[in-house]
Amino acid sequence: MAKEAYVGVDLGGTNILAAVVDKKGKILGEFKCKTEGERGASGVTEQMVGAILAAIKKAGMRKKNIAGIGIGVPGPVHPQEGIVVCCANLGPTWNRYPLREEVGRRIGLQVAVDNDVNVGALGEYLYGAGRGTKDMLAIFVGTGIGGGIILNGKLRSGARDSAGEVGHMVILADGPVCGCGEKGHAEALASRTAIERDIRLALASGQPSIIPQLMEETGHTVMSAGIIGDAFDAGDEPTREAVRRAQYYLGILISACVNLLDPEIVVVGGGMLERMGEPYLELVRRVAEQHYINKAEAARVRIVRATLGDHSGVLGAAALARERLAQ
Amino acid sequence: MAKEAYVGVDLGGTNILAAVVDKKGKILGEFKCKTEGERGASGVTEQMVGAILAAIKKAGMRKKNIAGIGIGVPGPVHPQEGIVVCCANLGPTWNRYPLREEVGRRIGLQVAVDNDVNVGALGEYLYGAGRGTKDMLAIFVGTGIGGGIILNGKLRSGARDSAGEVGHMVILADGPVCGCGEKGHAEALASRTAIERDIRLALASGQPSIIPQLMEETGHTVMSAGIIGDAFDAGDEPTREAVRRAQYYLGILISACVNLLDPEIVVVGGGMLERMGEPYLELVRRVAEQHYINKAEAARVRIVRATLGDHSGVLGAAALARERLAQ
Repeated sequence: MAKEAYVGVDLGGTNILAAVVDKKGKILGEFKCKTEGERGASGVTEQMVGAILAAIKKAGMRKKNIAGIGIGVPGPVHPQEGIVVCCANLGPTWNRYPLREEVGRRIGLQVAVDNDVNVGALGEYLYGAGRGTKDMLAIFVGTGIGGGIILNGKLRSGARDSAGEVGHMVILADGPVCGCGEKGHAEALASRTAIERDIRLALASGQPSIIPQLMEETGHTVMSAGIIGDAFDAGDEPTREAVRRAQYYLGILISACVNLLDPEIVVVGGGMLERMGEPYLELVRRVAEQHYINKAEAARVRIVRATLGDHSGVLGAAALARERLAQ
Repeated sequence: MAKEAYVGVDLGGTNILAAVVDKKGKILGEFKCKTEGERGASGVTEQMVGAILAAIKKAGMRKKNIAGIGIGVPGPVHPQEGIVVCCANLGPTWNRYPLREEVGRRIGLQVAVDNDVNVGALGEYLYGAGRGTKDMLAIFVGTGIGGGIILNGKLRSGARDSAGEVGHMVILADGPVCGCGEKGHAEALASRTAIERDIRLALASGQPSIIPQLMEETGHTVMSAGIIGDAFDAGDEPTREAVRRAQYYLGILISACVNLLDPEIVVVGGGMLERMGEPYLELVRRVAEQHYINKAEAARVRIVRATLGDHSGVLGAAALARERLAQ
């Protein structure tokens, strides 16, 4: 058997998922375990190596059949050196951690590393909604807003490995404060966190809503995409208004990206989209098109949902390995 | 003599300028004439061919020494087909005009065509402020705001030949109306036109200003960059405020572009910058850096002035020919 498969690893704060993926994006075997973050970077690296080997075994393969390993990391990364800059959720042992070298040394295979959002974008490009296109922008809407850019078939890292930070583009100068501390960024206007803030403001002003009841029933202290979706479906007015506002600003953000980059396709994913589904994009598209400078060809800018869902991490990481390690 | 020079043509609503440019960006000979727009696309094409031949003669060269022709057009262009989509300032005979074919047929040389803003960006990249970089964003601030993107050494046209339209990125959702009819675009906030609008509002509200006097003295009905600059230098308060606001929003715009694209350098040119000079960029840089997501490496994003000035059109057009027609 030739070296035809890659292993993709999705390193998360909660779980580590490893999967053997063939050239067509088919998962041949996978393995999942809880991330033991308290063991620090080297302990978690051991876990990842174990998960990789377990996934290879489940696929009925051996290490010699594997062409390389790709890893998506929840934090900024210098992909060329394979060094993790930091992982806010995993602690300080990850600061400037040479992940590529550490995994490569233990497993004896080539390793590619990038941040999880870029990895997700690449996965959608090669195996998901972006398949067959040349230029793609991916936007993931959840607790924050992240993005990845593929131009001429290549993931763009940028001059400082900071490209694709769509969540921190100003779209409402002097608007609400973002998680990063600055004002008016898209993440402060169109993320799940922005929706939660707006609903809480409505509740504080005494508007009736089923949200408090839903949170009590589920025991959540944070308004998950699930709770927001349930309240939305039930016609809860404060939720509908907050969601509408987030859709509006997501449309504005996409229009700004399109007027700058003019990509072939915009793929939108993440927790909010997975919960809300296709209807979420209707208003988004309408707002975006209104601001395109090239209105005559507005219909040629496709805004579509991501298709890989929960597997975007491992498929994207395998795609990363395929792209970066390809001979 | 080998084919070592290109001819760059800057087609403007007022003038046609043609120049023979060597590989290092040195102008070897040039020729200028008034654009006789009333003669329509084919008449103006004849003029351009005449200007090209005159410039070659002035350079002491012959047609056989010329490797190709580049033309910058004041309007949207399909560069691959060499077709002008339209030229608002030059009339309807330019709609879908096959400029590359028409010039090429008359002169017997290969021709490359693009819009004047992309051409200016390419000129700055190869011969001006962007020399030696790999990724560059150019922003030209004048009556409007245009831009051009060079990534990995190549001008990015985009999937619909609409990339680089930085002037129509929303940076203040629901803000002032833009020339394109939509709200909150950078052009409505940071262009000379935006400055003029803000000064006129201040005048209408009765604020004292030397602007009316300056306009009367010069006979201008529009506030040129020169008038705005003179009032600014004289400490005119409504002008200072309006300019400060435009600088602020230009900084916001640049931060949005940097967070998305992460270029190596941002080159800022156009009429406002030429008049106001280097000090104009101080506030712009400060505001931009504040919004970068990668603050640790903020200093590595250089924001600099364009250096080609009046010759950016012909130098950029020659650069276009060099890039597109290079064997």
